[in-house]
Amino acid sequence: MDDTAERGGVDGARQSAGLDVALQRAGLDVALQRAGLDVALQRAKGLKLMIFDVDGVMTDGTLYYSERGEELKAFNIQDGHGIKMLRQYGVEVALITARKSRAVELRAANLGLAHLHQGVEDKRSAHASLLAQLGLAAEQSGCMGDDLLDLPLITRCGFAATVPAAPEALKLRAHYLTRAQGGHGAVREVCEFILRAQGSLERAISAHLI
Amino acid sequence: MDDTAERGGVDGARQSAGLDVALQRAGLDVALQRAGLDVALQRAKGLKLMIFDVDGVMTDGTLYYSERGEELKAFNIQDGHGIKMLRQYGVEVALITARKSRAVELRAANLGLAHLHQGVEDKRSAHASLLAQLGLAAEQSGCMGDDLLDLPLITRCGFAATVPAAPEALKLRAHYLTRAQGGHGAVREVCEFILRAQGSLERAISAHLI
Amino acid sequence: MDDTAERGGVDGARQSAGLDVALQRAGLDVALQRAGLDVALQRAKGLKLMIFDVDGVMTDGTLYYSERGEELKAFNIQDGHGIKMLRQYGVEVALITARKSRAVELRAANLGLAHLHQGVEDKRSAHASLLAQLGLAAEQSGCMGDDLLDLPLITRCGFAATVPAAPEALKLRAHYLTRAQGGHGAVREVCEFILRAQGSLERAISAHLI
Amino acid sequence: MDDTAERGGVDGARQSAGLDVALQRAGLDVALQRAGLDVALQRAKGLKLMIFDVDGVMTDGTLYYSERGEELKAFNIQDGHGIKMLRQYGVEVALITARKSRAVELRAANLGLAHLHQGVEDKRSAHASLLAQLGLAAEQSGCMGDDLLDLPLITRCGFAATVPAAPEALKLRAHYLTRAQGGHGAVREVCEFILRAQGSLERAISAHLI
Repeated sequence: MDDTAERGGVDGARQSAGLDVALQRAGLDVALQRAGLDVALQRAKGLKLMIFDVDGVMTDGTLYYSERGEELKAFNIQDGHGIKMLRQYGVEVALITARKSRAVELRAANLGLAHLHQGVEDKRSAHASLLAQLGLAAEQSGCMGDDLLDLPLITRCGFAATVPAAPEALKLRAHYLTRAQGGHGAVREVCEFILRAQGSLERAISAHLI
Repeated sequence: MDDTAERGGVDGARQSAGLDVALQRAGLDVALQRAGLDVALQRAKGLKLMIFDVDGVMTDGTLYYSERGEELKAFNIQDGHGIKMLRQYGVEVALITARKSRAVELRAANLGLAHLHQGVEDKRSAHASLLAQLGLAAEQSGCMGDDLLDLPLITRCGFAATVPAAPEALKLRAHYLTRAQGGHGAVREVCEFILRAQGSLERAISAHLI
Repeated sequence: MDDTAERGGVDGARQSAGLDVALQRAGLDVALQRAGLDVALQRAKGLKLMIFDVDGVMTDGTLYYSERGEELKAFNIQDGHGIKMLRQYGVEVALITARKSRAVELRAANLGLAHLHQGVEDKRSAHASLLAQLGLAAEQSGCMGDDLLDLPLITRCGFAATVPAAPEALKLRAHYLTRAQGGHGAVREVCEFILRAQGSLERAISAHLI
Repeated sequence: MDDTAERGGVDGARQSAGLDVALQRAGLDVALQRAGLDVALQRAKGLKLMIFDVDGVMTDGTLYYSERGEELKAFNIQDGHGIKMLRQYGVEVALITARKSRAVELRAANLGLAHLHQGVEDKRSAHASLLAQLGLAAEQSGCMGDDLLDLPLITRCGFAATVPAAPEALKLRAHYLTRAQGGHGAVREVCEFILRAQGSLERAISAHLI
């Protein structure tokens, strides 16, 4: 190897120094993210109850009003299949929401959900009575919400998930932030995350490979 | 350090000269943006009244028509919570819109809004009478619009916000351009911006950390 | 300037050779795009009639079905304002669509459009009779479509626009491809493009700066 | 050419070595992707029957609920035209879906589809009876689905397509993954892919260039 090439090599090292720092930082980010995911998986492992908010979580937050008032809610079919799998593999599912609509009632019935609490501004008491009813500790319950009204549950549950559209105050406190938007598969993503944490995801999938 | 390395270092400096210019420009952009945000914060600080347009601001601009005519409007739940917080912390909220629909009436009622002006093509008079009614100066009023019909308010109010889908003529004159699209959290973003300017945002959030 | 710096300069030139080629190509693209826009502006200059398809152009192509059949169409408020401006500044507007729905009838009425042709699979005859009725040459008519059924108009009109979701066959033949999606401002974008070509855009905007 | 310039040239080669590796990898990806597309084209060539799932494929997976239950489904007009072309050029089309709604019935009728199977949880038997009825082998049938319930068809059909929102288990087994989302042109994309594989696409387009 001649001197010129050597110089080139040194130049290369110099030039890529900035890149190295960037890569190191990115590596740190990945490491931190992995650590965060490990914590989230650990917390999701023992869940016996998962509580979902409705608007912004089961929907994209859109409230369709007609001249008769609030009229439609837009749910997601893959979310529904996720909730069914969650229940099938031993995690009870509840909906707690501050609003009240017949559409939610019918969607809950369609998914076979017995635990539906509508018109609940203060979600703490609904949470407490659910835990009492099912004989569970708070650590065995998880929740998923998209706005400030969900903060009391997020700080109380063993596992908390939120969506990209949520305020920073929720993102900072939740253990899992979905990639999917609310109403566009965010609930399904969380269901699969919990099933993976509990070692049930592969079984849930292979049941369809027949 | 040998001569080769030194050369490498000089080469590096040269090569990054173009980058420096780019960074300088980016730095200038950031500085300008910060200056713009400071102005916007200053203007939002003294607001006592915030006026929202409906279509394209409280919605994404979609008009759902059925065989009975205009049928649905798609509002956003996080926007609603933002408006409630704004009123709770002392900023009155009004809706002024050129169209007319029962859905808007019902949404306004759901949010407890007393000031609803529908079917208003020339928004200047509605603005003037609102100011008179509330005993406010124009500088104490803010507005948020998405189209040319909103220009007269944007040039009259103390603080003006607009959305990414608005024409350039609005973006050039508004003090705050939302990141979120209309109907997908743009109103909430503006509400939080005003609350931050007035020093109320942290209190609004911590009220839910109980 | 010393020799080292000079060398750095030569190195810089070498290293940026690849970049130069890329920039040259990008420059060529920009030049070609500008040339294309010039042609489109020239063609839009003399328009007296603009024909819009409905589904995929005035809407995003979504057909909302209920148990009563096709139920809703989702129009865009900014599109509506664009169409009003176009007519106000001397360009007649028509809708020609292969489907048939009462919602389109009502939207057309809301925009004050007299020329509505629904249920038209072969758009050539509707086009011909419109030209005869208005005493116009084909070059004075423009069209905007999103699918193969629109090709006969696109090859016949003096100016043709299409949307990002259109098949390649349309994009290759249209003079203007919108950045906005159908139903999300694509019609407004075309209206403003025609108004600019005809020198009316600034007047249309400044009418609101009072 | 002097020595300095030569050094610059060597430096250039060194510096672009990392780029070369990246390009090589990208080239490999492109090659693999092309190989995958070739397989998919080959498989689509002999199709006589194409089976579409409804929710998440013909729609974006949204279930609109009103106080009367599931109310609306959002179909796509370009998908409809794709299905019509497919049938026109000799590929029969069927819909098999686990849910049941009158909206799907009406959309199928609007597209002239005779083969509609609703309320089918286990899609294997519906598939088998379709094959028997039409006198086809499984290799002559294709399918498109978006969730785990579609896996049995995906592993049985000669050609299988899926959408970006589908679980990994489907993406790994499908032969074609659409760029378009379900309900936003994914079905149309697959129809055009099959028409191209069968050499009918150009004819289908040129029929409109008259």
